[in-house]
Amino acid sequence: MSAQIGVTGLAVMGANLARNLARNGYTVALHNRSVEKTDALLDKHGDEGDFVRTETLQELVDSLEKPRRVLIMVKAGAPVDSVIDQLEPLLEPGDIVIDAGNSHYEDTRRREAALAKKDLHFVGVGVSGGEEGALLGPSIMPGGSRESYDSLGPMLEKISAKYNGEPCCRWVGTDGAGHFVKMVHNGIEYADMQVIGEAYDVLRTAAGIEPAEQAKIFTDWNTGTLSSFLIEITAEVLAHTDARTGKPFVDVVVDSAGQKGTGRWTVVSALELGSPTSGIAESVFARGLSSQRGQRELAQEILQGHEGSVDLPEDFVEDVRLALYASKLVSYAQGIDMLTAAAGEYGWELKLDEIASLWRAGCIIRAELLDDIMKAYAAEEKPANLLLAPAFAESIAGAVPAWRRVVAAAVQLGIPVPVFSSSLAYYDGLRRKRLPAALTQGLRDLFGAHTYNRVDADGTFHTLWGEDRSEVEAVDTH
Amino acid sequence: MSAQIGVTGLAVMGANLARNLARNGYTVALHNRSVEKTDALLDKHGDEGDFVRTETLQELVDSLEKPRRVLIMVKAGAPVDSVIDQLEPLLEPGDIVIDAGNSHYEDTRRREAALAKKDLHFVGVGVSGGEEGALLGPSIMPGGSRESYDSLGPMLEKISAKYNGEPCCRWVGTDGAGHFVKMVHNGIEYADMQVIGEAYDVLRTAAGIEPAEQAKIFTDWNTGTLSSFLIEITAEVLAHTDARTGKPFVDVVVDSAGQKGTGRWTVVSALELGSPTSGIAESVFARGLSSQRGQRELAQEILQGHEGSVDLPEDFVEDVRLALYASKLVSYAQGIDMLTAAAGEYGWELKLDEIASLWRAGCIIRAELLDDIMKAYAAEEKPANLLLAPAFAESIAGAVPAWRRVVAAAVQLGIPVPVFSSSLAYYDGLRRKRLPAALTQGLRDLFGAHTYNRVDADGTFHTLWGEDRSEVEAVDTH
Repeated sequence: MSAQIGVTGLAVMGANLARNLARNGYTVALHNRSVEKTDALLDKHGDEGDFVRTETLQELVDSLEKPRRVLIMVKAGAPVDSVIDQLEPLLEPGDIVIDAGNSHYEDTRRREAALAKKDLHFVGVGVSGGEEGALLGPSIMPGGSRESYDSLGPMLEKISAKYNGEPCCRWVGTDGAGHFVKMVHNGIEYADMQVIGEAYDVLRTAAGIEPAEQAKIFTDWNTGTLSSFLIEITAEVLAHTDARTGKPFVDVVVDSAGQKGTGRWTVVSALELGSPTSGIAESVFARGLSSQRGQRELAQEILQGHEGSVDLPEDFVEDVRLALYASKLVSYAQGIDMLTAAAGEYGWELKLDEIASLWRAGCIIRAELLDDIMKAYAAEEKPANLLLAPAFAESIAGAVPAWRRVVAAAVQLGIPVPVFSSSLAYYDGLRRKRLPAALTQGLRDLFGAHTYNRVDADGTFHTLWGEDRSEVEAVDTH
Repeated sequence: MSAQIGVTGLAVMGANLARNLARNGYTVALHNRSVEKTDALLDKHGDEGDFVRTETLQELVDSLEKPRRVLIMVKAGAPVDSVIDQLEPLLEPGDIVIDAGNSHYEDTRRREAALAKKDLHFVGVGVSGGEEGALLGPSIMPGGSRESYDSLGPMLEKISAKYNGEPCCRWVGTDGAGHFVKMVHNGIEYADMQVIGEAYDVLRTAAGIEPAEQAKIFTDWNTGTLSSFLIEITAEVLAHTDARTGKPFVDVVVDSAGQKGTGRWTVVSALELGSPTSGIAESVFARGLSSQRGQRELAQEILQGHEGSVDLPEDFVEDVRLALYASKLVSYAQGIDMLTAAAGEYGWELKLDEIASLWRAGCIIRAELLDDIMKAYAAEEKPANLLLAPAFAESIAGAVPAWRRVVAAAVQLGIPVPVFSSSLAYYDGLRRKRLPAALTQGLRDLFGAHTYNRVDADGTFHTLWGEDRSEVEAVDTH
């Protein structure tokens, strides 16, 4: 019997994707560098569906129906190249190689171009949902050629998460588009988690609400516009009591957040694209700062807070909810702005409504909000920025007074809210008639003759600052 | 007569460095791809010193005493490689090739390693001060081998800016260290200009102080702890009246700030180093946002401000001065933190006191403050963070209450102050006993089994969230 798809790399993510495929009725050929993992999988889960055991990549390839589909799930970086190098001579034109790992989209672009020359399809697929998602239904973001999706898409859609019956899997665009979209998803995830942390910190420090009580608040929030997986599990983590000490779990965990690098990638890419993704950047930096333990311990002794006093409004909890909501919206707006910029840069026809749709279930940032975002971009007239979509312009306007109160209170009370405040600065910057960038341009013209434009005339100008301060038309040569 | 140094690339920066060298008594061989520029320079400034006219790189090389010193001043990127490729076969072991352009330090590291294999010294030199600085005395940041500095250093020190008679030129470290230090200088320059813009915007919007009046305030500020080139020229720009309209100059300039990329490079590098350089990042993003004119114009129509009201304190101008000072200090602290991280990453023995010393004159960020920063790092005990140096811990503590008032007021009034607020969040984050990063770690453990550390025990732990919520010791495999 031929298998419909092969999976190489059977650590937990690869094994769970293979099981997911088999449980959905596909015959799955299995391969791993060490055969023990293959046998362990068959031993424990072999009865979940039809598996074909193989010991070598040649056997794996031979076991597959044509055109072949080989899914690689190994550590991002050199291991992916290594598996591709071994596979490539064994394959035939039209075969499809799938990288479902957390690869950088630039690597995916490079690999796709190289394999396309040999008439092989290379499909970088973003997969979100962790181990459980891989097994039960992840959000799936495939790139690669449109043609490859005809063969591969139905399988991926079948194993993906469903939102009201719709698969959370769509072809997002050529070459590295799938991994790019997944990267932005992860960047947004960083910001989502940071704004939750800021809300928790403000509620605890400003309003004295303990974790167990906050768990109820987050559970309540999970019934409204904030409804999402991350809000749900925040309630779960905050409700948890440490068995060893009887303290709130969150108080026994070291407050240094780790990172695997995709948040950082997102910001680097945003910088290259010129897209102002400040919320994600502040989230990445907040994790970095939290991990500088040596400096922090010294600073706790040395730096003075000089906190002010604040009269909290009666419904401060609702204020914080609105600040969290507004800041979260800004992070999504910034992430989507990056997608728009990338579509232009890389020639991808990213459909923003479809991308939002496939984040509605299965992935870490799944949220009710994404259904509304999908609708905003499915409209005839696409918003130039998420915040400018009528529904969101209205909902964020409703949050603005509370958002200002919360940031102002946190600032006075010495509670760091880098993403709340950065997002508000972005909002105010975006809507402002005049920005002090005009002064920046004046300074740059004075010290570097970088020139400027005028509000009342076309052309590029330079003031002769060192001479009589007359203005001359200029070509920007700097 | 042999020349002591050759300069190839005679656009304005190269020409001015060549003239600076000649005016300081060195015999300078001149070369340019098109000889017209060489002749124009000789024509106009040939009497300023001893120049040797050459038409080809071979002639340039032949005109130099040995070991030769050839300074390249061409556009960063491929043109530098091209000139190096042409020069290399003409040179002999021990000769020194100098790149004084705005090259990326990774390119400099690559070029240095390649030329070192041929026993040639390659020295990447950061030069700041613009055209005028190049002619009259820039701040100079040379990298490359220590040995090359014995031959090159005295010349560079002679043409550099002087601060109380001390040259603003020091060997900063091997290979790309010079260009790295210059890049961080530029990143700090971005933040410096942005905080000036925020101060101006707050004074104008919150307090209604017009540009001409603000010019006097900045002139006054220039006599105190903020004394610096950028504050000085801010007064000059704000005082300037547009001849065409009679309006303040700053009101006729389009408020979209350009950038040449070095700010962006700084943030990308900070992300790679894991150094939380949020102030510089926000400055780069603020320029990016200012240039998104299409979105901004729509947002001005659509987004609601819902500004609050604020009673400004009597001495609000002094509050703004202190907010500017504190935010500026944070940008320097973050930039220096990057230097420390880079020293570890690239094996550079960066001397932070010396680096601060050579920014005291000649460069765009020159400021009185840098003399104090130099002293802080010249102390026996080096501070782990600039803000923790006793003098700065004290001066920033004195600014904190005002800083909080200004950010809170701006937030209420709808004035975007991304760097004021981000810097304050950094300050509060650094000094805070517990950060919500503990919650982040809890969430990451729940959805991704990313594990966590405990405050009361060694080891790495994981809670079995999906089972009985007991805790197990874990190895971090994710």
